[in-house]
Amino acid sequence: MASQKLLSMGTKIIGVGRNYVAHAKELGNAVPKDPVLFMKPTSSYLANGGTIEIPHPLKSLHHEVELAVVIGQKARDVSVAAAMDYVGGYALALDMTAREIQSQAKSAGLPWTVAKGQDTFTPISTVVPKSLVANPHDLELWLKVNDEIRQKGSTKDMIFDIPFLISHISSIFTLMEGDVILTGTPEGVGPVVIGDKVTAGITGLIDVHFDVQIRPKPFIG
Amino acid sequence: MASQKLLSMGTKIIGVGRNYVAHAKELGNAVPKDPVLFMKPTSSYLANGGTIEIPHPLKSLHHEVELAVVIGQKARDVSVAAAMDYVGGYALALDMTAREIQSQAKSAGLPWTVAKGQDTFTPISTVVPKSLVANPHDLELWLKVNDEIRQKGSTKDMIFDIPFLISHISSIFTLMEGDVILTGTPEGVGPVVIGDKVTAGITGLIDVHFDVQIRPKPFIG
Ligand SMILES: [Mg+2]
Ligand SMILES: [Mg+2]
Ligand SMILES: [Mg+2]
Repeated sequence: MASQKLLSMGTKIIGVGRNYVAHAKELGNAVPKDPVLFMKPTSSYLANGGTIEIPHPLKSLHHEVELAVVIGQKARDVSVAAAMDYVGGYALALDMTAREIQSQAKSAGLPWTVAKGQDTFTPISTVVPKSLVANPHDLELWLKVNDEIRQKGSTKDMIFDIPFLISHISSIFTLMEGDVILTGTPEGVGPVVIGDKVTAGITGLIDVHFDVQIRPKPFIG
Repeated sequence: MASQKLLSMGTKIIGVGRNYVAHAKELGNAVPKDPVLFMKPTSSYLANGGTIEIPHPLKSLHHEVELAVVIGQKARDVSVAAAMDYVGGYALALDMTAREIQSQAKSAGLPWTVAKGQDTFTPISTVVPKSLVANPHDLELWLKVNDEIRQKGSTKDMIFDIPFLISHISSIFTLMEGDVILTGTPEGVGPVVIGDKVTAGITGLIDVHFDVQIRPKPFIG
């Protein structure tokens, strides 16, 4: 399967929370013993060059720059040793998060779905074929808002590495061709507001850019 | 689109929590002011006659019998007045829930994904064309474990009705053809264990049956 078609075939996005020690700490969370897993729908994808929409009545969303692992073939109960065979490619993704909604949900014991899953909340690059990625655990992820560097981190600082995540997640959910794992964000998350320009990338491999606007609130008769 | 093909086209399942007053109360939850929304992946579907798998080390799962609304065409920012035009059909679904995992997640402010989304956690009937459903707000849902009736309720007792749910959810996520809304469960949820036979249905329209077993824990080398 040509790697560029993978994203359109996928049916789920599994997000991993708190997978970098410094990020877990910046939000006041403990470092997890098991991966924290959540879901985003594929309807939340936004292609490179698009506009991230802040839904009414929010004034900002948080950026989280992440390495996306794109699954290349159906995976169920995959061993750590075999896990990398199930990778179809990589992408650079932003796990946009309505932090106020997430904070309220966490306090109330409610799902993270609305905080994480809205349309345009998963800006993502095209798929980088795995043949171009010598070592996915030695990639520099970066994110700028306007001219300011906000996040810069290395995938070598993941708490749970990619083979472990694929094996673990595939023991819970069958991963389908084109499904995506968002592997967590390094430290430096923070708000974007109307008019911001976000650029992000994997150094030497790919970069993306997005605008930020309020979501037009339609008149619904 | 023939209604039977819809489920295989869908890419998400949006669950509605606490949509019947008596069920909200039986779990000690307040009646919500807004719908409680969560996601399940389509990899959790189980066709009629299949086996619900309890994952290690759990000893039981909870059954929740629900009316599933199957979306017939892409829906974004749909009004309450137009919402029913986006229904492609209905189905009877079980929103199987690992209640201990969900309870721990709620206490810790963590996502519900692992509690709700595992393989076989969404047993579902074939799609009933909407032409066969005179009034989706006057359907009797029932569920039996072995020979014991555990749940019986009417969709007229939903807190948020179907047009409201479609309108509300479509203002948060674009609903795609084949996506499913699980509209919540009436009271009477409880455990199923190894060897149980679950039957459930919509009186006069459709019924389904499922076995319950421990999920075989594979050797992963
Ligand atoms: Mg999905
Ligand atoms: Mg994230
Ligand atoms: Mg339910």
